[in-house]
Amino acid sequence: MKQLYFVTSNENKFKEAGKILSNYGIHVYMKKVELIEKQSDDPALIASSKARDAWKALRNDVIVEDDGLFIDALQGFPGPYSAFVYKTISNEGVLKLMNDVTNRNATFLSVIAHCSRNFAPIIFKGAVKGKISKKLRGRSWGYDPIFIPNNSGGLTYAELKSKKNMISHRRLALEHFAEWYTSI
Amino acid sequence: MKQLYFVTSNENKFKEAGKILSNYGIHVYMKKVELIEKQSDDPALIASSKARDAWKALRNDVIVEDDGLFIDALQGFPGPYSAFVYKTISNEGVLKLMNDVTNRNATFLSVIAHCSRNFAPIIFKGAVKGKISKKLRGRSWGYDPIFIPNNSGGLTYAELKSKKNMISHRRLALEHFAEWYTSI
Repeated sequence: MKQLYFVTSNENKFKEAGKILSNYGIHVYMKKVELIEKQSDDPALIASSKARDAWKALRNDVIVEDDGLFIDALQGFPGPYSAFVYKTISNEGVLKLMNDVTNRNATFLSVIAHCSRNFAPIIFKGAVKGKISKKLRGRSWGYDPIFIPNNSGGLTYAELKSKKNMISHRRLALEHFAEWYTSI
Repeated sequence: MKQLYFVTSNENKFKEAGKILSNYGIHVYMKKVELIEKQSDDPALIASSKARDAWKALRNDVIVEDDGLFIDALQGFPGPYSAFVYKTISNEGVLKLMNDVTNRNATFLSVIAHCSRNFAPIIFKGAVKGKISKKLRGRSWGYDPIFIPNNSGGLTYAELKSKKNMISHRRLALEHFAEWYTSI
């Protein structure tokens, strides 16, 4: 069984990732490391720099994950700053911004950066297209109650509950990583 | 006459700063340098890191400036991400978020970071308290059409036009810098 650290302070993310990676025989440990984030509109750059710093701190195989919700009608807002926006204006603020907006298309993007002794950080991405709901639906964390992935029968990530893990942007990114990681 | 570089890609900022600093016998040149911003909720940390990088690139006295609008009712949003928020949802988005919000208090903060051969970056701050207007008022750039500084007779920064420079957060920060810089 392969083992590595998932560097995050978000227990929900860790739980999701742990379940998905265990299907590939990969065991992850949650590890909190104080990482300085570069400010950039490019999530891959942010994750890549964090993975490098995390490897330097732990000297062990690591992954970090950043995700962002990119809303078409808002020119990609909240995008790379999804965490800050969630902390300040939250889902209620995003729904207010989308009030009376017809084009509700959005993309949820996950970026996994992996770093190990022998490699520069490697990036794996997963993206799911969908729509922003008109109100909060389902109880969960993050933007899950307002994101309706395409082909979900109109349910939000939050309403899909455990089924979210079968189709989520994070799953897609983790699968790309896991397929590569178990092949080396 | 003292001379230094103001590293920015924003001509409006540069013009404002140039006028204010000329009162102190300081001449600034505008210089564009590609700087990587750290992602942080602390504008002083961002500016400080940028000033250091700018000095390394130019080997000459430099200042950089970051400013942010911190809205009380939105838990400090857009704050350190004011530039990104302006680029995406703009003033219209901020006004939409403030629709029906009674507490319209906000603070406009400017952080100047100066770096020269002999010093670690030094930070100078200026803050102006005020309120968010109910609609766009006056033609200008950035958040100037929606920010009403206290004691302005109810006018926005944009409506104050050239008088903005007499009372702005950027003026306060630049004054702190200029008083120190002309004394060394």
